[in-house]
Amino acid sequence: MDNYVRIFDTTLRDGEQSPGATMTSVEKLEVARALARLGVDVIEAGFPAASPDDLAAVKRIALEVGHPGRAEGMPVRPPIICGLARANKNDIDKAWEAVKGAAVPRIHTFLATSEIHMRYKLKMDREQVIERARDMVAYARSLCTDVEFSPEDAGRSDPEFLYLILGEVIQAGATTLNIPDTVGYTTPEEFGALIAGILKNTPGIENTIVSVHCHDDLGLATANTLAGIRAGARQAEVTMNGIGERAGNTSLEEVVMALHTRRPSFNLNTGIDTTQIMRTSKMVSNYTGIVVQPNKAIVGANAFAHEAGIHQDGMLKHQQTYEIMRPETVGVTHSRLVLGKHSGRHAFKTRLTEMGYVLNDVDLDKAFGRFKDLADKKKIITVADLEALVADEFYQPREIFALDGLQVACGTMGMPTATVRLRGPDGQLHLIAGVGTGPVDAAYKAIDQIVQAPTTLLEFSVHAVTEGIDALGEVTVRIQGRSPQRSPIEAQKELDQPRTYGGHGADTDIIVASVKAYLAALNKMLVATGTYSSEGERTVASEVSASVRAA
Amino acid sequence: MDNYVRIFDTTLRDGEQSPGATMTSVEKLEVARALARLGVDVIEAGFPAASPDDLAAVKRIALEVGHPGRAEGMPVRPPIICGLARANKNDIDKAWEAVKGAAVPRIHTFLATSEIHMRYKLKMDREQVIERARDMVAYARSLCTDVEFSPEDAGRSDPEFLYLILGEVIQAGATTLNIPDTVGYTTPEEFGALIAGILKNTPGIENTIVSVHCHDDLGLATANTLAGIRAGARQAEVTMNGIGERAGNTSLEEVVMALHTRRPSFNLNTGIDTTQIMRTSKMVSNYTGIVVQPNKAIVGANAFAHEAGIHQDGMLKHQQTYEIMRPETVGVTHSRLVLGKHSGRHAFKTRLTEMGYVLNDVDLDKAFGRFKDLADKKKIITVADLEALVADEFYQPREIFALDGLQVACGTMGMPTATVRLRGPDGQLHLIAGVGTGPVDAAYKAIDQIVQAPTTLLEFSVHAVTEGIDALGEVTVRIQGRSPQRSPIEAQKELDQPRTYGGHGADTDIIVASVKAYLAALNKMLVATGTYSSEGERTVASEVSASVRAA
Repeated sequence: MDNYVRIFDTTLRDGEQSPGATMTSVEKLEVARALARLGVDVIEAGFPAASPDDLAAVKRIALEVGHPGRAEGMPVRPPIICGLARANKNDIDKAWEAVKGAAVPRIHTFLATSEIHMRYKLKMDREQVIERARDMVAYARSLCTDVEFSPEDAGRSDPEFLYLILGEVIQAGATTLNIPDTVGYTTPEEFGALIAGILKNTPGIENTIVSVHCHDDLGLATANTLAGIRAGARQAEVTMNGIGERAGNTSLEEVVMALHTRRPSFNLNTGIDTTQIMRTSKMVSNYTGIVVQPNKAIVGANAFAHEAGIHQDGMLKHQQTYEIMRPETVGVTHSRLVLGKHSGRHAFKTRLTEMGYVLNDVDLDKAFGRFKDLADKKKIITVADLEALVADEFYQPREIFALDGLQVACGTMGMPTATVRLRGPDGQLHLIAGVGTGPVDAAYKAIDQIVQAPTTLLEFSVHAVTEGIDALGEVTVRIQGRSPQRSPIEAQKELDQPRTYGGHGADTDIIVASVKAYLAALNKMLVATGTYSSEGERTVASEVSASVRAA
Repeated sequence: MDNYVRIFDTTLRDGEQSPGATMTSVEKLEVARALARLGVDVIEAGFPAASPDDLAAVKRIALEVGHPGRAEGMPVRPPIICGLARANKNDIDKAWEAVKGAAVPRIHTFLATSEIHMRYKLKMDREQVIERARDMVAYARSLCTDVEFSPEDAGRSDPEFLYLILGEVIQAGATTLNIPDTVGYTTPEEFGALIAGILKNTPGIENTIVSVHCHDDLGLATANTLAGIRAGARQAEVTMNGIGERAGNTSLEEVVMALHTRRPSFNLNTGIDTTQIMRTSKMVSNYTGIVVQPNKAIVGANAFAHEAGIHQDGMLKHQQTYEIMRPETVGVTHSRLVLGKHSGRHAFKTRLTEMGYVLNDVDLDKAFGRFKDLADKKKIITVADLEALVADEFYQPREIFALDGLQVACGTMGMPTATVRLRGPDGQLHLIAGVGTGPVDAAYKAIDQIVQAPTTLLEFSVHAVTEGIDALGEVTVRIQGRSPQRSPIEAQKELDQPRTYGGHGADTDIIVASVKAYLAALNKMLVATGTYSSEGERTVASEVSASVRAA
């Protein structure tokens, strides 16, 4: 068995399934680029059968990130680009269509194998499940030489049944066998034993890669993944910041840094450039709107901070007394001043390129203009400020409604008022004042009166990008359209659920940032629900669906 | 070996060492009450030698929470109240003074045993360390029958040396032996083997309780703790939400719910009432200002939320397909409407008592007035709203400067202006207008002009308490006083470091909430640094220290 652990990143697939983590296709492309720079071996770029948008996003990543050195700063060895598919021909066809443009494409198909899933979800017996898995792996293999199969909910499946079905799919052509603890139920001892058992008892397993995919419902995802690796798994499926359904997936940063920090214990390598971890973490947090708690291992704001006097004293005496990793190893730098107000366009471009942002000339001019504005307001422009600025300016969804002006009055007198001017898809300006329980509420009410697309605000959060009260404020919101009850006759019913939309805005004025974030989320929703076409015209289909909703 | 795992909560000691997590003594008392209701076996209430305030806070908790059924809703069996002490007589005396008023007091003393700590921090050899540990445990035992000893950095200590020193402190009278992985360095296999080795090789260990204390630097704290318990440890040291130094401590909620959810695997019990977990988690997050990320296991906002269509479909077919715990088990309730604007004072009091808040008549009247104001603005008042309201109203630090009025104008015209009126410690009103990069910056600048205590804003975050744009906004800030370089001749140098202060404010207007939060943090800082006495007078000592600082 080799000593190289493949890092399979599923931030763009399982991570994006976090409530509200919906990313635009441009954001997904940027994250894929960052993952390639980070050095992941496989990028699971999405679930192409879920929607035409998902398919298009995976396709673009396959073409633009899945080839050697196509863009600046990209590695010579490109990542494998993988698409997820349920075990049916339609899903597999869509996945293949999406990934085939990559230098090394992969199809990943799955089928549940636990009694509870087979009985209640699939309504299939063991023989039917084996037959479907074998047939669909063979079909995927007829299209693509790299095929991964996952027995969903393996953590709660009968091991003997797993040996059997895995042996069958290996015969049918599967090259990677991924063992998911779908509900985050197992302990490290159990999960390690499961992997060891599979390696020992599955016919043909020696010619495949065994992979592990854990969830963090009991806080054990990292430990389970490492236990699987110790037992012989050589691929780990992970997400940045551990985002994902419910309590999330295994954190990429924790697994990689455990293997790295404890190399003498594990004696295993990965291809990850650890100095890219922090930057990638921040990008994912910005684009998904999912905050990283200060006490998160490796990437939390406090992970390398020390408060107690005793610890600080120890640190002064010898760094390693309380520190097992150097902050620089994961890309935490303390260089704050990166650019000042007198920096020119060339220095600005160079700095952005170093940070991994590739902008065309038009976008660069726009960004430079905004940088100059910010430099007028704020003395010190840090890497974090630049990241917020670039994220805010360039990775916004298509603007159906654009902010043209905002004026707010509020305070303890209790009559918060916001006047909002938006430019609509028809180019017309709309000006409305709203009163609310606070300035954000007032502004959102004014916007709602203009846009006329009822939403529920699920989450609203603000944080300062950098230290200091003059910092850029970053606002993330998550909204949900007020949609009808689920219709029982919908064809693609498993996928057609009301989704939530995240929006992100940055400004030194947090009310302005709040309005930008809300508009970003609204614009995403308007395009995604088809209320407006990507050219900004209200579509007929949505009028129909609007009348259905009213019924 | 019994099958009961003691839960030793150190949220108020190791958790409070998180940067910015400083709590007021009233907040600490409320957290201690919540921990008693949660059913923890031991509350480590603080580090009494750190400051007179810490000592007073522990003393009050010992008297008010460390006795059977003294307050409404308190359990019949009170928690043990524990105080931390370095291995010296002064610390042990202070700890004993603080905890002796409890029905069951405990002194917890520690001394480092790893080569790196002994050499660089303690500058002592093995023999000196053993002698000190033995003497100080004996001294603590002469005061208190319940004495815990921790060999600091045990995870990196020589196991043979641990067997030796632990055997010696057992002879000296230690009743609990706590094994800390201080830097979060070990893996579950290593940590489990360490505990097993200690149980096998330490003379006299069979008559003591072995405890585990892990840190999450590599994301393995929960797994390490469970590995220690499987190896025979019967006390787990944990914090709510896993807060603590750097990446934090082991999460109480993860260990407890792993033991609970996987009871057939572990066959172990705890005394925890799991339905109190979510409420306690929220209280700790509010008071410390340390947010819980949405994908945090057990207590994250998404821990029980499902996004992907596939999963939702499975859930509709059978709840257990994707859910290994019921949200109700940890106290997540979906009852939203708890009170309306027509609810009377009695209903309001009853509801607060159910939630665990015990208010006197004056405070109840104040809270009821605020509730009525909120009910006028907001249609639905939820449990979360009530919690934010009570937290904001009653658990604020002493107000040195109080907000009397605020008026704000901002927007895209780029001249954010805030007019602030504060009532100072002398009863005088101060009215100043400020201009800033945004409305919060403008307001904070106006406050700074009045208060004249320079600070650095380290963190600023806002989140909406409940769904809907009319929700209460909760703001948390962390500030640090701009203090002098560390003087090498300070006597208590290990503890005298610049601290950070957190503040919390809630209001439907997020600018008003931001001002409240900043004032709360400032007031904490002014009292803690002795700039103002608790009666609000500027002290002479601080004038002296101010001039030292200027030098």
